[in-house]
Amino acid sequence: LKLLTLARDLRRRKAREKQSLFSAEGVRTVEELLRSPLRVRGALFTNRLSDTPRGSELHTALQQQGIELLEVSDEEFVTAAETESPQGILAIAEIPDTTLDTLRLAERVRLVVLDGVQDPGNAGTITRTAAALGATALIAMPGTVDLWNAKVVRSGMGASFHMPVLAAGWAELASFTQAHSVSVWGADAAGVPLESVRAPARLALVVGNEGAGLSAEARQSADTLVALPIGSTVESLNVAVATGILLYQLRS
Amino acid sequence: LKLLTLARDLRRRKAREKQSLFSAEGVRTVEELLRSPLRVRGALFTNRLSDTPRGSELHTALQQQGIELLEVSDEEFVTAAETESPQGILAIAEIPDTTLDTLRLAERVRLVVLDGVQDPGNAGTITRTAAALGATALIAMPGTVDLWNAKVVRSGMGASFHMPVLAAGWAELASFTQAHSVSVWGADAAGVPLESVRAPARLALVVGNEGAGLSAEARQSADTLVALPIGSTVESLNVAVATGILLYQLRS
Repeated sequence: LKLLTLARDLRRRKAREKQSLFSAEGVRTVEELLRSPLRVRGALFTNRLSDTPRGSELHTALQQQGIELLEVSDEEFVTAAETESPQGILAIAEIPDTTLDTLRLAERVRLVVLDGVQDPGNAGTITRTAAALGATALIAMPGTVDLWNAKVVRSGMGASFHMPVLAAGWAELASFTQAHSVSVWGADAAGVPLESVRAPARLALVVGNEGAGLSAEARQSADTLVALPIGSTVESLNVAVATGILLYQLRS
Repeated sequence: LKLLTLARDLRRRKAREKQSLFSAEGVRTVEELLRSPLRVRGALFTNRLSDTPRGSELHTALQQQGIELLEVSDEEFVTAAETESPQGILAIAEIPDTTLDTLRLAERVRLVVLDGVQDPGNAGTITRTAAALGATALIAMPGTVDLWNAKVVRSGMGASFHMPVLAAGWAELASFTQAHSVSVWGADAAGVPLESVRAPARLALVVGNEGAGLSAEARQSADTLVALPIGSTVESLNVAVATGILLYQLRS
């Protein structure tokens, strides 16, 4: 029953940070986890996992990799799961030991910095988008949802298993960007039009909270504020959509 | 109690279509509704609406516009509401009488066509994105969530109150695009790179289902399939993010 207790515990951010472990829920997420370099500690499953051929195959794959498995009842399972319809599978894996200092920087750098992004779905979609568009890493600043929250991991579709994701403070980010000549741009409706500025080779793009936008710290950190020109009937773009457009535009 | 019965009924798509009415839930959505040209038939509220200054102001605004108001208990309210934390306010308004025939086309046309987009959050985010990026209209094809579903309306942040949104069939869309010289592009990972093609003045962009992508009908309708180049660690972009990037790239 140790795995069940552990999985329940890992629903708390503090426990994830202390143990350096997280939960991956759902067939697709666990499949991606097995394809990734991350170390899997064990998995909980219910008999519903074998309801689909894909679920059965995943069960076999977990067994073949010698991963500790515990079958639990549906009632026990829901006490450990965080996402909706977790499909009877939850794996526990090690959070990679990634910090700003361990990041490997190429000539071209694109960091995505989340400033108080609170919705797990948005954070997950940004993770997926950042990985798809070749971001160097994703950095969660204070006030942002934990990137190892099960809902974020799941809506990230496994992107966080391949791209470095980490949390940092503003002072830490500032020393890092200065030391490595990384320009910091903030996305803000009052900024200069994106088309009017040229992206530097090394860039950190800060995107703000869903309602409040950029924090005072983010504005202070940014060398430049850039805006996407949008029509007047809509107040703003969704933060994941805005991040996608900006990253795409700034890709070269 | 008529309003309460009506609101409960409007949770069903068939009832919305028959009555040509929909529900707008939450303070922000109802504020946007009052700013829009749409006709409001009435609103349900609970005493929780006045918990915030913004809610109180909205209550006053509804009264001043002479809109029929019904105070209900929290228990009654949840039987009518569809979204999470609806903030004690739900307004019923008329669905605009928009069809392909009533669309006013300028020289430049950007139609966004949803092909089996099922998640209300994605459909709402696409509505918001399409309006922000100057789309002419949003068209829901068979298999797509109803664009007047309360969750879609709410996550659209009022965009559907300003931009034409409508449902259509494939044959109807084909006659329309042919009659008005509108090219049809489908977004598909196997398509030609977006950068290799030039957007025509009149374009309908078809985006597909979250898991399955474009349907057979969509592929048949499309003159061209276009792809966004993405990295290999991620299978695809979220459909709302992809739509945002495509619309932004195709804006001129």
